[in-house]
Amino acid sequence: MPPTVAAVDVGGTAIKYGILRDGILEPRAEIATPLRGPDTAREVVDVVAEAVADLRRQSDIEAVGLVVPGHVDAESGIATRSDNLGWRAAPLRDQVAARVGLPVAFGHDVRAGALAEARLGAAQGLRDVLVVPIGTGIAAGVVLDGRLLERPGPFGEIGHLDAGHTRPCVCGRIGCLEAIASAAAISRAYAEQNGHPATAAEVAARVGQGDPVAALIWQQAVEALARTLAPCVTLLAPDAVVIGGGLAGAGDLLLRPLRRALERLTPLEIDLRPAALGTLAGCTGAGLLALDLLGDAEAG
Amino acid sequence: MPPTVAAVDVGGTAIKYGILRDGILEPRAEIATPLRGPDTAREVVDVVAEAVADLRRQSDIEAVGLVVPGHVDAESGIATRSDNLGWRAAPLRDQVAARVGLPVAFGHDVRAGALAEARLGAAQGLRDVLVVPIGTGIAAGVVLDGRLLERPGPFGEIGHLDAGHTRPCVCGRIGCLEAIASAAAISRAYAEQNGHPATAAEVAARVGQGDPVAALIWQQAVEALARTLAPCVTLLAPDAVVIGGGLAGAGDLLLRPLRRALERLTPLEIDLRPAALGTLAGCTGAGLLALDLLGDAEAG
Repeated sequence: MPPTVAAVDVGGTAIKYGILRDGILEPRAEIATPLRGPDTAREVVDVVAEAVADLRRQSDIEAVGLVVPGHVDAESGIATRSDNLGWRAAPLRDQVAARVGLPVAFGHDVRAGALAEARLGAAQGLRDVLVVPIGTGIAAGVVLDGRLLERPGPFGEIGHLDAGHTRPCVCGRIGCLEAIASAAAISRAYAEQNGHPATAAEVAARVGQGDPVAALIWQQAVEALARTLAPCVTLLAPDAVVIGGGLAGAGDLLLRPLRRALERLTPLEIDLRPAALGTLAGCTGAGLLALDLLGDAEAG
Repeated sequence: MPPTVAAVDVGGTAIKYGILRDGILEPRAEIATPLRGPDTAREVVDVVAEAVADLRRQSDIEAVGLVVPGHVDAESGIATRSDNLGWRAAPLRDQVAARVGLPVAFGHDVRAGALAEARLGAAQGLRDVLVVPIGTGIAAGVVLDGRLLERPGPFGEIGHLDAGHTRPCVCGRIGCLEAIASAAAISRAYAEQNGHPATAAEVAARVGQGDPVAALIWQQAVEALARTLAPCVTLLAPDAVVIGGGLAGAGDLLLRPLRRALERLTPLEIDLRPAALGTLAGCTGAGLLALDLLGDAEAG
């Protein structure tokens, strides 16, 4: 039986935590993320230590998995940068380890979610998987041979590739993929062009109802996504491509035209699937990173 | 001191072989590749066995590295398919191993060349490298953590991604990247539009001389390459991108505009370099695969 581990997912608004036991995440609670300030990193370490103490009152835990947003250097355990949380070069892994006295695995929230979808979610049992969450932003996680691809610098940031349009992006550049194809961008484009606010899910529903404004916005988003994903998919030929985040809630309204566009653009057949773990993917992945850490230590 | 191994690179016209000793390939000879026919695979095994026997008369060899073109399943040692050589599902690794009585490492010629550029060539000392040879076709090899990425099915075939034009490709599709950006495509386009035949290198030289036809063909090729490579590079954020094959001979005439286009399209800084090993990259990589095989066997 695999060890029981703690899993902690630090998000922009809440810190979620729970226990990963026998391949199942048992969510325990959420605590509001400390407000952005000069001491956010220290306060987050406090909350994480409390969360782990809470979990240890219920279960024997052998390790902690901790994931955070922003730029992350998984190897050195450093949260390099988060604009939302305001930290720079915060050595969170070692600080949490010193507080809780357990081995701590450290990673990036989106990539940990990708690992969880590959091992326990939509692509369970597959070896090489590309996971693309599409929500406020667009990112990508790569699992090869069942292990998460990690790099010290920023990477996987496919949302900030040029997609050949003229809308401004939050990053300050013009034409980024996520400024036309993220759930937030779709919602914003519809509000601008139609005068009525609508979530991306509502825009998707209106595509089904024959709304021409919705249809054009949706088609542009799908085409931009396909143009960006096609080279990634062709380069790696993963066993499956998992689409997650809010936009995956549109289901076949998204996946069917995206699959069609990808098959037009690439020489491969593509197994495109919706994510299965929803908002618990990151926390589940944190637990998996902790299991990998214990496994690697044992393997020597 | 690393072991001494044999390295054999089966190409469409010649089988090159040599010794890899202390990180240096000592080329020994080339033998014409047997003509395509019903028995090509068997005849290639004969030639490879003779090549290995020739090398063993000179040196003590501990393993053989063998690379071939087409679709290759490195893990099972099977040459899945080569349209040039005409074989299907040829178990070359085991057949050569049975003949020579040595461990045989098996791989794909382009990907082996990528490994060689990453370890001993243009990206020596770097950990994560994307290598893109641009010649008659366009392919890609990925080295992560110093090891070659391998997959059982066809992959890395970025030359057959749609690049948004209307020229036919040798593969039967329309609009493939290599139908506009390979050395062969550039040469063909110039001959068609100018009436004079010219190699890609000559087209590159004419760009420098202000030839407007050459300039437009070159610019379209560079833009198509950049649009395809940008997502790959952003997804993986390699330490370097190495451009090889015939087109890399154009040097800065290719690399400078390609770097500029990539920096416009991606959020990353990119270390773009010309390949260093030339036509010996595949053979050198074959030797490296043999060293890896011996190293893995030792590591258990």
